[in-house]
Amino acid sequence: MQTQVHLLTMAHPGDVSALDALINSGAVDAGRIVAVIGKTEGNGGVNDFTRGYFTQSLMQMLSGHLQASPAELAARIPCILSGGTEGVLSPHYVVFCRAPAQAANGNEGKGGALAIGLAFSAPTAVEQIGRASHAHQVARAVRAAMDDAGLDDPADVHFVQIKTPCITVARAEQARACGLEPVSGDPNKAMAHARAAGALGVALALGEIDEAALTDAALLSDMALYSERASVSSGVEISCNEVIVLGNSPRWRGPYRIAHRPMRDALDIGAVAGALSDLGLAASPQLGQDALGRIAGVFVKCEPQRNGRVRASRHTMLDDTDINAQRHIRGAVGGMVAGVIGDGRIFVSGGAEHQGPDGGGLIAVIASGAQDA
Amino acid sequence: MQTQVHLLTMAHPGDVSALDALINSGAVDAGRIVAVIGKTEGNGGVNDFTRGYFTQSLMQMLSGHLQASPAELAARIPCILSGGTEGVLSPHYVVFCRAPAQAANGNEGKGGALAIGLAFSAPTAVEQIGRASHAHQVARAVRAAMDDAGLDDPADVHFVQIKTPCITVARAEQARACGLEPVSGDPNKAMAHARAAGALGVALALGEIDEAALTDAALLSDMALYSERASVSSGVEISCNEVIVLGNSPRWRGPYRIAHRPMRDALDIGAVAGALSDLGLAASPQLGQDALGRIAGVFVKCEPQRNGRVRASRHTMLDDTDINAQRHIRGAVGGMVAGVIGDGRIFVSGGAEHQGPDGGGLIAVIASGAQDA
Amino acid sequence: MQTQVHLLTMAHPGDVSALDALINSGAVDAGRIVAVIGKTEGNGGVNDFTRGYFTQSLMQMLSGHLQASPAELAARIPCILSGGTEGVLSPHYVVFCRAPAQAANGNEGKGGALAIGLAFSAPTAVEQIGRASHAHQVARAVRAAMDDAGLDDPADVHFVQIKTPCITVARAEQARACGLEPVSGDPNKAMAHARAAGALGVALALGEIDEAALTDAALLSDMALYSERASVSSGVEISCNEVIVLGNSPRWRGPYRIAHRPMRDALDIGAVAGALSDLGLAASPQLGQDALGRIAGVFVKCEPQRNGRVRASRHTMLDDTDINAQRHIRGAVGGMVAGVIGDGRIFVSGGAEHQGPDGGGLIAVIASGAQDA
Amino acid sequence: MQTQVHLLTMAHPGDVSALDALINSGAVDAGRIVAVIGKTEGNGGVNDFTRGYFTQSLMQMLSGHLQASPAELAARIPCILSGGTEGVLSPHYVVFCRAPAQAANGNEGKGGALAIGLAFSAPTAVEQIGRASHAHQVARAVRAAMDDAGLDDPADVHFVQIKTPCITVARAEQARACGLEPVSGDPNKAMAHARAAGALGVALALGEIDEAALTDAALLSDMALYSERASVSSGVEISCNEVIVLGNSPRWRGPYRIAHRPMRDALDIGAVAGALSDLGLAASPQLGQDALGRIAGVFVKCEPQRNGRVRASRHTMLDDTDINAQRHIRGAVGGMVAGVIGDGRIFVSGGAEHQGPDGGGLIAVIASGAQDA
Repeated sequence: MQTQVHLLTMAHPGDVSALDALINSGAVDAGRIVAVIGKTEGNGGVNDFTRGYFTQSLMQMLSGHLQASPAELAARIPCILSGGTEGVLSPHYVVFCRAPAQAANGNEGKGGALAIGLAFSAPTAVEQIGRASHAHQVARAVRAAMDDAGLDDPADVHFVQIKTPCITVARAEQARACGLEPVSGDPNKAMAHARAAGALGVALALGEIDEAALTDAALLSDMALYSERASVSSGVEISCNEVIVLGNSPRWRGPYRIAHRPMRDALDIGAVAGALSDLGLAASPQLGQDALGRIAGVFVKCEPQRNGRVRASRHTMLDDTDINAQRHIRGAVGGMVAGVIGDGRIFVSGGAEHQGPDGGGLIAVIASGAQDA
Repeated sequence: MQTQVHLLTMAHPGDVSALDALINSGAVDAGRIVAVIGKTEGNGGVNDFTRGYFTQSLMQMLSGHLQASPAELAARIPCILSGGTEGVLSPHYVVFCRAPAQAANGNEGKGGALAIGLAFSAPTAVEQIGRASHAHQVARAVRAAMDDAGLDDPADVHFVQIKTPCITVARAEQARACGLEPVSGDPNKAMAHARAAGALGVALALGEIDEAALTDAALLSDMALYSERASVSSGVEISCNEVIVLGNSPRWRGPYRIAHRPMRDALDIGAVAGALSDLGLAASPQLGQDALGRIAGVFVKCEPQRNGRVRASRHTMLDDTDINAQRHIRGAVGGMVAGVIGDGRIFVSGGAEHQGPDGGGLIAVIASGAQDA
Repeated sequence: MQTQVHLLTMAHPGDVSALDALINSGAVDAGRIVAVIGKTEGNGGVNDFTRGYFTQSLMQMLSGHLQASPAELAARIPCILSGGTEGVLSPHYVVFCRAPAQAANGNEGKGGALAIGLAFSAPTAVEQIGRASHAHQVARAVRAAMDDAGLDDPADVHFVQIKTPCITVARAEQARACGLEPVSGDPNKAMAHARAAGALGVALALGEIDEAALTDAALLSDMALYSERASVSSGVEISCNEVIVLGNSPRWRGPYRIAHRPMRDALDIGAVAGALSDLGLAASPQLGQDALGRIAGVFVKCEPQRNGRVRASRHTMLDDTDINAQRHIRGAVGGMVAGVIGDGRIFVSGGAEHQGPDGGGLIAVIASGAQDA
Repeated sequence: MQTQVHLLTMAHPGDVSALDALINSGAVDAGRIVAVIGKTEGNGGVNDFTRGYFTQSLMQMLSGHLQASPAELAARIPCILSGGTEGVLSPHYVVFCRAPAQAANGNEGKGGALAIGLAFSAPTAVEQIGRASHAHQVARAVRAAMDDAGLDDPADVHFVQIKTPCITVARAEQARACGLEPVSGDPNKAMAHARAAGALGVALALGEIDEAALTDAALLSDMALYSERASVSSGVEISCNEVIVLGNSPRWRGPYRIAHRPMRDALDIGAVAGALSDLGLAASPQLGQDALGRIAGVFVKCEPQRNGRVRASRHTMLDDTDINAQRHIRGAVGGMVAGVIGDGRIFVSGGAEHQGPDGGGLIAVIASGAQDA
């Protein structure tokens, strides 16, 4: 098998014309699309409806190409979106297809080519969201996705994208009316808990943390527990957990490989250079035109440091009543990564609780081989 | 003479204790302070009162050390603040003192040391703000500040910081009541015009544009006209134009030098590396601890590109009803520059109309010589 | 004929289940739906995609009930949404159906019952949007909608809801690339021009202004020109003008009547009481439970006063860099009207340029007759 | 004694010229000023520095009139500000003076005239803020202020304004470094706890709750506990609790009286009418010019209902990532109250935890007697 990757742009959150055109031209076989990861231009918070709008538009369009209803497709193709294109970030989506392998392509001798695996969990109950049992549910789904990709060794996994459900004020009220207590009645707080559960679920599945460490109390509290490869978004539009596992495997073919690095803080520009370097790409200080042409996807998680400082200096993100702290940090880290890459089509997602070192995050890059490879 | 530079932090916009401590310890002679440039944590817009608060606090504190009232000091010491510490940016201020030269210090053979010159214009009438006559007024003040610094050759000037008055709804109403038409009744638009007039005033004084090109119609319209060295802020708290000119001069002594580069767009990380390189500092990809210790001030202007794109990709800054576009761009460019420098104490100011290439901006860096110099 | 009115709620902008349930139960005949007016919970600005999301969801749902594609339905059923449910405002939509008249219902002797008429204009070119020719195009469409309703006398018209296209940064760039100059490159400014054109188009059609007064220069400038019955929204999701005319007509039957009042400023609580009084409803100071049960729709336009004052007192809406002025005014006027009505399901739309007196706006209320009528 | 009340406006948060002019004219004796309550145009959150700026400006100005430093005055004259003038609200401040009684003035037979009492507590430790011990500290200060006013009967107290310190990210870090755990590391959450402690302190002092009910666990949790007369603000600029008690007392003279009502929710316009009615003022639906001239101060607390509804309808305040919920509710309730009063100079403060019924709040009005009284 091989993974095909298409980095596409949108004019607004209801615009899926770029993918529609590729399908109509035959460049993409709609039936082989297995996952979509993207950024839409909402605020990235509880009341960001650009994610649901894009997903509805995508599934409706695909439904016109395939013998399935939008609902059936949504239940089969994870479409994981992060809202918020602050600063230089540009709305875009990355479409992953699974296709029969082409002939040899140069990645055989380099430890394999990009592999993708998927899984959907059962729905998570509102009172379960953001708790340890939620993390265990995610861990099981990650292992299922690794099996799906044929990735046996956790070391070969470089990026796990999760989308978890979250809790709105209305959902919290419903639960309480049934005598069930949601993890938090504050929607933004509950969203953070949901992301934390997703992240520690990945960490557990990849052997980055011990099962014993994964308790209700540890979530959003023991920040020494984290995954270097988990990226978790949370949204009102879903009720189960969607998992996409990406890694490199000698069983797979194709021009793409993936690399990742943890980011120790919001100024860790070295992590960006490091992930690029693992793929044979040098930014000095920015990728050249050829190297930029090889980039098929850049995925970043980041987080405003909770002690109110970035290294020695005070930041003001957490004290700002006007701009949400996640919007601040996405804009800043997005600016830095986009500066190194030379392009604003970077997936930068805030809310990196337990995703990379505390106050930092992680980066994963997918690139094709050099022309001459 | 020599210029002394102190990069200080604040805990909030009314906190000038860091400078007070330096004065009390004798490290700074309050009477030698000639200018302050800083960033406060407001929103950077018309209703950002953190600038006025800091200035009031500063002048009141200095008044306790000097035989002058706060008002007299404010009329003599330009305190130019930019509001908005989005993302990783950190509230800070740079204090410039003029002192008798110490003995030789290693910069003699390198084309001179950091020189500083100052000027205040007469008050600008509300109906004049943001028009060509405003720019001419600024140009005269820039030339006066160059004379003050003994900088005869415009090529030796690397950074000109201007603060211009702006127009609130109330001021606009007053003017109209007198039969005078302000350049715009929209406060944010008027602020942009004020910055444009300041920038083209600098460009005229430095010979970067022809006098004939400087017309009312050109402001905010002919974006091919710009200064590579102008940084203009605008605020409700002043009524005249304050000018600080910084350059390198063989007549000056001291450990500091300044360098600058235009930035062609918000991803121009090469300009950051270039300005550092001019000062003998290498970021690969970030400054090391020693090099960071030599940094005394980083000054950046930037601007959301008005065609809605950053290079090939659509950005969403100008279409965002929730976050002002200037807040977006400061966060993004601030993140990139802070990533290269390794510190969030970067003066990043939005509103770069005619300050650097359209959609880009500029960077200036002040650094001391290497230890062994 | 008679007009049926359904005031429905939504759980999020993609939720049209309330109408779907009414159709499934037989309470609403999907084929008789002629118009929808509603409020969604976006920011109400250029980047508010909740309107497009709701419209897509609505048309897709209706398409399942009718022999027509979503696109065909969207071209036939005006769905005019205003984004922004600040403060106590609640997301909701009012569905209008045209049905054969039932038997006599008590409104015969009172000057008629609620009548509705519709029209769609041709698409408005980007360079035409927000100019006098745009207003003329709207005026023609209003007259067509009056004909459609059988409302010959402009005095019988009480509310005209218009949705006009607007200009994004991308659309402006496209136009400029073709050598055409849009009315403004600033999306929020262009949106204001589009609303102004819509409003003066209504004023012209209803004989509230002279045709000679309607010039390009008058738009957003001569604020003495206005309609007391125009409500205009503007959105990125459409390219033509949609018109809904509401009035009372003796030719129509049914329990509903409509009344309106201009609001002279944002504190004109008397206008609210006046419109209610015209319908036989007394608020002292709030509607009682029975009276509230008769309310079928409340429609308000409002505007932050451009001189920076509300009566004698300074307001800060126009100087606020963090919250858009339209969001401020919707929240304030919405709070006042909801307080009198006793319910947050009020259509309050900002951007009232030329819609009611300058700095004020207007209110229209639809209510059914008293039980015993 | 008698209380003098001056309702003054400001052009910006550093503008205290209106009071300065009254002092210079002799209309106000600076030495008799005992308290100031006002609204400034910041965002009302942790990073609202307009409160500190106004206070600094006020104390500096008063220092010029009195033989005392700004710091001494700040420790003696409570200046309690609430940030946020959303919508039609107008920045203003109410100055209270205590003066020897004039001759008889018509209020003698009506249950007394406006009385004012003050108290300052000791500083509250960071780890104590927002906990039950904080509430007890406030209760003691309220009783001291009642004694100061000569108000023995809690029933004669109509409004208690408290300002409590709050916790920034920096303060929380400091406390943790000392092994002390602040009530919350989230600044906005900690601010809510601080207000809750202040409110229940008032309730305890006024006998509205039992001492046994006042536990750490009850704060922000048992919302059935509340005061109908407490108004609490919280700000970074102070470290102790400031208390102003207002009531009516037969021992006092002067033209002013005060009345209050709890507000059951954000639509409780009847509470506004009720408080006015207690003072002999009729709004039908708005105060007339004469009645408006008698208003000397309107004080409102309000709160977004935590179940996500206002009466039957869903509101979106708590799910909004872009505008803080407190800004939403101040704008909405401010619009309603200003509509009834006919003026935007209303003190509307969000964060009404335990201040009035849950999801509602309270209103207090000070008015002078009728001309003919």
